Amino acid sequence: MSRELESGQRKILWVRAHMPVQRAIAARFREEQPFREHRIGMSLHLEAKTAALAVTLREGGAMLYVIESNPLATQDDVAAALAETDGITVTARRGVSEPEHKEHIERLLDTDPTLIVEDGGEVVARIAERGAPRSPSLVGLSEETTTGVEQLASLQSEGKLSIPAIAVNSARMKHLLDNRYGTGQSTWDAIMRATNLLIAGKTAAIVGYGWCGKGLAIRARGLGARVVVCEVDEIKAVEALMEGFAVAPLDRALEQADFVVTATGRPGIIAEPEIAHLKEGAVLANAGHFAFEIDRNALATKSVAMRKVREDVDAYDLPSGKTVYLLGKGELVNLSVADGHPVEIMDISFGLQALSLEHLAKHHASLEARVHPVPDEIERTVARIVLSMLSSPSQ
Amino acid sequence: MSRELESGQRKILWVRAHMPVQRAIAARFREEQPFREHRIGMSLHLEAKTAALAVTLREGGAMLYVIESNPLATQDDVAAALAETDGITVTARRGVSEPEHKEHIERLLDTDPTLIVEDGGEVVARIAERGAPRSPSLVGLSEETTTGVEQLASLQSEGKLSIPAIAVNSARMKHLLDNRYGTGQSTWDAIMRATNLLIAGKTAAIVGYGWCGKGLAIRARGLGARVVVCEVDEIKAVEALMEGFAVAPLDRALEQADFVVTATGRPGIIAEPEIAHLKEGAVLANAGHFAFEIDRNALATKSVAMRKVREDVDAYDLPSGKTVYLLGKGELVNLSVADGHPVEIMDISFGLQALSLEHLAKHHASLEARVHPVPDEIERTVARIVLSMLSSPSQ
Amino acid sequence: MSRELESGQRKILWVRAHMPVQRAIAARFREEQPFREHRIGMSLHLEAKTAALAVTLREGGAMLYVIESNPLATQDDVAAALAETDGITVTARRGVSEPEHKEHIERLLDTDPTLIVEDGGEVVARIAERGAPRSPSLVGLSEETTTGVEQLASLQSEGKLSIPAIAVNSARMKHLLDNRYGTGQSTWDAIMRATNLLIAGKTAAIVGYGWCGKGLAIRARGLGARVVVCEVDEIKAVEALMEGFAVAPLDRALEQADFVVTATGRPGIIAEPEIAHLKEGAVLANAGHFAFEIDRNALATKSVAMRKVREDVDAYDLPSGKTVYLLGKGELVNLSVADGHPVEIMDISFGLQALSLEHLAKHHASLEARVHPVPDEIERTVARIVLSMLSSPSQ
Amino acid sequence: MSRELESGQRKILWVRAHMPVQRAIAARFREEQPFREHRIGMSLHLEAKTAALAVTLREGGAMLYVIESNPLATQDDVAAALAETDGITVTARRGVSEPEHKEHIERLLDTDPTLIVEDGGEVVARIAERGAPRSPSLVGLSEETTTGVEQLASLQSEGKLSIPAIAVNSARMKHLLDNRYGTGQSTWDAIMRATNLLIAGKTAAIVGYGWCGKGLAIRARGLGARVVVCEVDEIKAVEALMEGFAVAPLDRALEQADFVVTATGRPGIIAEPEIAHLKEGAVLANAGHFAFEIDRNALATKSVAMRKVREDVDAYDLPSGKTVYLLGKGELVNLSVADGHPVEIMDISFGLQALSLEHLAKHHASLEARVHPVPDEIERTVARIVLSMLSSPSQ
Repeated sequence: MSRELESGQRKILWVRAHMPVQRAIAARFREEQPFREHRIGMSLHLEAKTAALAVTLREGGAMLYVIESNPLATQDDVAAALAETDGITVTARRGVSEPEHKEHIERLLDTDPTLIVEDGGEVVARIAERGAPRSPSLVGLSEETTTGVEQLASLQSEGKLSIPAIAVNSARMKHLLDNRYGTGQSTWDAIMRATNLLIAGKTAAIVGYGWCGKGLAIRARGLGARVVVCEVDEIKAVEALMEGFAVAPLDRALEQADFVVTATGRPGIIAEPEIAHLKEGAVLANAGHFAFEIDRNALATKSVAMRKVREDVDAYDLPSGKTVYLLGKGELVNLSVADGHPVEIMDISFGLQALSLEHLAKHHASLEARVHPVPDEIERTVARIVLSMLSSPSQ
Repeated sequence: MSRELESGQRKILWVRAHMPVQRAIAARFREEQPFREHRIGMSLHLEAKTAALAVTLREGGAMLYVIESNPLATQDDVAAALAETDGITVTARRGVSEPEHKEHIERLLDTDPTLIVEDGGEVVARIAERGAPRSPSLVGLSEETTTGVEQLASLQSEGKLSIPAIAVNSARMKHLLDNRYGTGQSTWDAIMRATNLLIAGKTAAIVGYGWCGKGLAIRARGLGARVVVCEVDEIKAVEALMEGFAVAPLDRALEQADFVVTATGRPGIIAEPEIAHLKEGAVLANAGHFAFEIDRNALATKSVAMRKVREDVDAYDLPSGKTVYLLGKGELVNLSVADGHPVEIMDISFGLQALSLEHLAKHHASLEARVHPVPDEIERTVARIVLSMLSSPSQ
Repeated sequence: MSRELESGQRKILWVRAHMPVQRAIAARFREEQPFREHRIGMSLHLEAKTAALAVTLREGGAMLYVIESNPLATQDDVAAALAETDGITVTARRGVSEPEHKEHIERLLDTDPTLIVEDGGEVVARIAERGAPRSPSLVGLSEETTTGVEQLASLQSEGKLSIPAIAVNSARMKHLLDNRYGTGQSTWDAIMRATNLLIAGKTAAIVGYGWCGKGLAIRARGLGARVVVCEVDEIKAVEALMEGFAVAPLDRALEQADFVVTATGRPGIIAEPEIAHLKEGAVLANAGHFAFEIDRNALATKSVAMRKVREDVDAYDLPSGKTVYLLGKGELVNLSVADGHPVEIMDISFGLQALSLEHLAKHHASLEARVHPVPDEIERTVARIVLSMLSSPSQ
Repeated sequence: MSRELESGQRKILWVRAHMPVQRAIAARFREEQPFREHRIGMSLHLEAKTAALAVTLREGGAMLYVIESNPLATQDDVAAALAETDGITVTARRGVSEPEHKEHIERLLDTDPTLIVEDGGEVVARIAERGAPRSPSLVGLSEETTTGVEQLASLQSEGKLSIPAIAVNSARMKHLLDNRYGTGQSTWDAIMRATNLLIAGKTAAIVGYGWCGKGLAIRARGLGARVVVCEVDEIKAVEALMEGFAVAPLDRALEQADFVVTATGRPGIIAEPEIAHLKEGAVLANAGHFAFEIDRNALATKSVAMRKVREDVDAYDLPSGKTVYLLGKGELVNLSVADGHPVEIMDISFGLQALSLEHLAKHHASLEARVHPVPDEIERTVARIVLSMLSSPSQ
């Protein structure tokens, strides 16, 4: 067996061993074969956790055609290992060009899938462009992200959504958990491994106090930092105060922050005016989805020199004589510097996905062609599996 | 000055000194006199914090007629002090009979109020019974509690709501704050003062993980207890787990709990079957609105003896030889044993009330006769005052 | 039975029900009668928890003579109830004069005790003054407080200590627990019940970061406050930082503190220069042993007016227009405003006392006439009882 | 410049940028040249933080001769970069054999050092073997570890310690900080990066509640885990309880633990009898100094199969059908899997080292040939630098 193949298989085995929701669902799927006559097109970040979802669906009887949703997120060893599975075709490679990626979408559509699971809404957008004839067998779709859900809503309002679609992202079991506990942990994991710096005794500015910000703040405190929250929504700011965090305007917070973590969803939060307020030695990291929250161009423009000082760490020397550090070039730091969400968090999301796809397979005939929430019973089923694993009878 | 009057005035002064929201609003009201031509009927728990709201409204130009919403919650010294204020008439006395209380409602309606602020929906229910002619000048109402909001919704659906009503209870600045931070703190305050027992090192079972339960759990941990959460909603139970609390079925939790605090909103949570699982020395307290969560009758029936062992603490000797303790007879423990919500929590709620009444006074003509949420701008205004007090520039 | 007697008995029953260490030791003492031929003189704060210790010793066969160590701390109902016990003589009354108190010490010595347990070292000092003939049967003494232990050390160095003495205060099971967990909890209990103010979202300045300060800080955070620690020992200050607390000079801390709690052991910590830095509305409380940490005279001198605004709360109006509040007149706030240490904390201390007295009774012949630590095995025995109660097999 | 050299220089620059204590001391040393006539022999784990200490000493005028204290801990790029510094000779290489390492010690002694700084006591042991003539100029030594301090104590008691030695390990600024905050953070950093598993909602068994165990427990809780502490010292176990952790016997803890972290200092804590109690999927990590706490041989013997499943993670399949995972082969996990202590923690330790060596250089003539503690003023100096960096005037 090739080294790459072995590496990919090992990764998939590791995550499946820690995905009790996938295992429980796959066990039932093996019996019931809900996807016996289904072809599922999958367009997701192709790494081990996603591969585990593909395996679950395959065990439910589906034929799968898998492409990458983001060419940079593909792990080739995982793709190779997944491609070994009978019934799963993989057309994904790290770093494919934009035209190649578009070509992959076309090929996926050529398989005439009955169901699609995707991340970001590109496939459904392409279907809408082409019109219905292109995928005559398609009966349903499930979507992982906010961006994709917005895409679906927009298609629906334009009257271009011809199939029922389930917005997995909006489920409570997703947004209550992955932002707070997934982003919270993995962001600080990334910061620690990138820097080897002490968190205890430091000041962490958390910019944005949405679900991500809440998770970032609670974990920063858990690691011994003093937390100062910056939040423009006054009501959220009061919540932060009541949780025991300091609340301050951004410039005041930056003056005392050893770590600055952004999670606002908005561009240019740390831009030219803010850079002047940074403390000597400040470490900047972005935990928001897009790489635009910390303005790298502004940092570069305002600096007299820029150097890579450690893997994933760039130093910017400011004219004031201060040096500040940017992690992972301002990309989503838990993915660019560490391993993304913890396995169990993705297990829960993908549990919702697997059951939502089953729901579509069974009930598509009676579902309107619009965006649907994840059925409550699916959320509860996933929650029950998590509880059965973690709240042991002995406690 | 009589001793009672002095005591009441002192209480009102103390709370006003710690109600920055009331003070800020009152300052503007004195200038703008939004209630210049209004008669406001007020039916609330008549204690010092409520009196502060009355003063705020009076400073805005209103004539007030104040009665009790719950005869047992009236503090006579506060009533006496409030009655001294020019322009405020008080008809409230601790422990009035049900017929007397109903008579007070009639008298309030006889004043032909233009606005009503109440707690529990009794006044609006009486208006609906009598029909509109009885209060010809009434233009709006604002309601403090869930119970009252449910009453309003029911009247609305029956077509019997003839005026716009604002549901203060549903505001984010109310339910995000008072249950978590108000109930959380004041319940443990009550338990400590009733028992003088150590919390650290003990196990606290929190039964129900809604907003109250979240506050109770976080404060129990903050006082050094191990927390075990009991929650029938699987998704909330997963949240409790992720927050680091143990989650267990009720019977398993009771076997290890030194403190059992209920906040489920449902009757008979601790009843005959549960009593058998209680640990020797368990302290039982109810933090839910109604006194029915811990079944006192079941406790009495299952016990071989019952004794008062300390102010607000009754011991029940069970046939097993164990003794368990019930605080405040199972009534809402922070009100029956301690001083209810902290002052600042009520300041925020009553800030929403004062501004909602002003909104009704100004805009009733353009508001439909249905239940309205607190306008977002009112929530933000209150939040901004809180922020200006607590997040000082030096931090 | 008189009302007072009943009240005292109820208090003793309540605390004994929550003193597993006393109960376990008393059970063995009843069998073994270690004090069969002993007369024990006891000079402690005479309230319910102390009475429980007296009962434990009595069950071990001792005849007891009990006086007050501090005339203001005597609870007459408890004294009355204790005096009903056969074999225990009580000569204590709340508010006796200093000459009367001294007379009580003489009477205690007149009983020719074999063992003494005391708090503060007054009795042993009187023995030293009078010389040995006065208490010919005395074979040992055990002391509860730091002050008393210092007294003993001083007598020893002067060659005036004629009996072995055990310094209970220095035991790990005492100083590791009662300052952190006892003072920590009971101080905030006192502050909440005295003020009804919200702790969450506020800033608490903890002045002094010894064991008491650590407990105060951790509980303040647990109640949702931001904590700023003031500590002159640089190493302790670094520890506070690493625990996630802010550290600041006293004047900077006072400018932002809503609550100021002193626990330094030194006089005049909050005196004239500091008063000028207090924030409007600041609540001042002292958690240190002596009433001298917050200088009441300085407060009075610097104020334009002083008023009692609530039970146990005095307001001081400063010339700047600010008003600040002092709890319990600057006395140790958990004793003056609340019920002192939680029951279980005293159970542990008094468990050490009971076993130390047994050790003296058994081994006095072989013990030198100097200050001894609590034997390690006694500490472990008490720890094992605590563990057996709190770390249930099911967890 | 070679790639290796550049990498080593970059590492040293990064850590020095985050070592304010080293920078402050080096600045003074450059002025005062306390080691102007000194040759310092250094035997430490040769990685970037140690190199920073070497640079500090060099800036104080010393000639340095640097060898490895542990052949596996040498980073060759750092060694190469350090060797470029004028005045510093480096004889260290990763993975040298035991005879080579011994040869390095001889060569260090051949330079006739005036001062020695070491980790583990090997050099001083060799001096004692050879007798004094071998290092005629040696006037003092400072030691980093517990093991080395024990070695020194043993030599002293045998009358073989011919020079004053400072036990840096015993300083409060070392043991109060590095075990709790250094080991606490870096161990969980290592576990997260090795596994990508979620900590929140899991149960972590912390085996041993010394300073390391306290740090491990507080960080586990900070990451959202439920913590169960196993500790044979009853008094420490009571402390753990009072901090809000569960306390249980080892077998009971292992049955519920998703993560098991050892920090007892004793061999074979997790050995054959314990393996049978492990939960399916348990992750085992050792945070104690030696690799003997988790018995790898026992794991291998009891397993039906063993596989590497991820970098630094070995799976052991037990006959019961369970699989458990061992991180970093049971070696000190923060060093074997992650980057060891955070930079700032080593900055503090090495600040004590630099100032202790200066103390020896200045005062050796008046210091007895025995083990000395770090002078209190040195601890305070280091603490003051830390405070000046972290407790900014604005807070």
